[in-house]
Amino acid sequence: MAELSESDEAFLESYLPHSARVEQPDPELPFVTVTYAQSMDSMISLAPGLRTTLSGPETKSMTHYLRLQHDAILVGVGTAIPDDPGLNSRYPGATLDSQPRPVVIDPRRRWNVEPSKVLSLAHQGQGKGPWIYTLPDHCLNPDTELEHAGGKRFSFSSRTQQPIGDSGPDFSWIELLKHLKAQGIDSIMIEGGASIISTFLSTPELVQSVIVTIAPTWLGNGGVMVSPDERKEEGVKVNAARLCQTMWRQFGADAVLCGRLQ
Amino acid sequence: MAELSESDEAFLESYLPHSARVEQPDPELPFVTVTYAQSMDSMISLAPGLRTTLSGPETKSMTHYLRLQHDAILVGVGTAIPDDPGLNSRYPGATLDSQPRPVVIDPRRRWNVEPSKVLSLAHQGQGKGPWIYTLPDHCLNPDTELEHAGGKRFSFSSRTQQPIGDSGPDFSWIELLKHLKAQGIDSIMIEGGASIISTFLSTPELVQSVIVTIAPTWLGNGGVMVSPDERKEEGVKVNAARLCQTMWRQFGADAVLCGRLQ
Repeated sequence: MAELSESDEAFLESYLPHSARVEQPDPELPFVTVTYAQSMDSMISLAPGLRTTLSGPETKSMTHYLRLQHDAILVGVGTAIPDDPGLNSRYPGATLDSQPRPVVIDPRRRWNVEPSKVLSLAHQGQGKGPWIYTLPDHCLNPDTELEHAGGKRFSFSSRTQQPIGDSGPDFSWIELLKHLKAQGIDSIMIEGGASIISTFLSTPELVQSVIVTIAPTWLGNGGVMVSPDERKEEGVKVNAARLCQTMWRQFGADAVLCGRLQ
Repeated sequence: MAELSESDEAFLESYLPHSARVEQPDPELPFVTVTYAQSMDSMISLAPGLRTTLSGPETKSMTHYLRLQHDAILVGVGTAIPDDPGLNSRYPGATLDSQPRPVVIDPRRRWNVEPSKVLSLAHQGQGKGPWIYTLPDHCLNPDTELEHAGGKRFSFSSRTQQPIGDSGPDFSWIELLKHLKAQGIDSIMIEGGASIISTFLSTPELVQSVIVTIAPTWLGNGGVMVSPDERKEEGVKVNAARLCQTMWRQFGADAVLCGRLQ
């Protein structure tokens, strides 16, 4: 994997946790970056459960560079199961200490973490052991292998108004982010899937940076699409989300858009 | 309206009809550019029939610059009715002679061209009279005002395998493009709406250039979306369309992507 050029790094700099000049609204919350790769028609995969390569080598390098700048990477179980992602950084020079903590939201314990790529990478010292968030009822069986790899399952439940993706009203993003912050996670990348990304795009108060890769291709009808719920003001439909302080840059055949949610 | 910078012009240059180095597969067909502005979630409007501003002033200038580089602009009746578009170029220095010919596809004569902005601009010498393509059964009433403004209604019918948007199997894009070429239209911009754009993205053999503006906003579920029909190869779903020779450039807060369909 090639390193980014100095000008690529400079382009990203002001959207990164350590250098972004944004007011953190709540000291109990981590810095949140939403980042994903999409097609022109806003899809992240050809069909549910089907891993689809969108980024070219340049934007792939960028993703692994970004992972090193964050304390954690978060994905939902709907991404973890079909993709079996590594959730580590393969960027040149990455050390175990600099690796982000993989965080998987798996309320009903659908994901078999033993075996998984993330666990095998942790065993090899190429990534940290994953943290998995699961509802209390599903936390009864032990996680010997997971804990042996330095991971942990958190029994997590909190009733609030902000339901998480497909997990029902027992999960709240705000409470989850606060819990992560209390565990020492000062910055986190939200990487997928589509429903989690769409939810975060609709909650600007939780997000400090948005970094999107767009590949010059259309996946076509029936793919898995990122699009926030519609928003109305005084009964009239308005844009669901909008970025300010936007910067675009070509990386290979793709473009990268950085911005902040208004 | 501001002029483009020299570097903006240079960026577009190799995708324009007069300078693009592409083989025209059929001398009976015009050079076709597909161009439109979309949100991040691939929508061109908040809801059917609702005109939605997406481009900033810089990409708006670009659109009017592009219009001057083409002999005609084509939209469907689903765009003409709600938007009442001018379909002319307001780029500095535009003369009547350099204006593109507005072409509206209105198979069932749903659009009231009298009155319309395009007709009023033609009367004022700020645009050419529109050409309207309509099925023979709907061409019986005269078009006095239209012809007075230098426009014309073409009675058009051709049975082939490529149906046009919502107009049924009596219309064929290939035959329509050939007809336009025979009328002296050497280059044409396809500007909308979503179903016509999606159709052209699926027919690379008819398209020489694609120029898309992306605004850093999400319109949200329920908007009017550009996405080609799904495509399968040997029963397996594959990308519906893909660009090569891509170039990206930031114009104000938006990005412009230029490329050629593979």
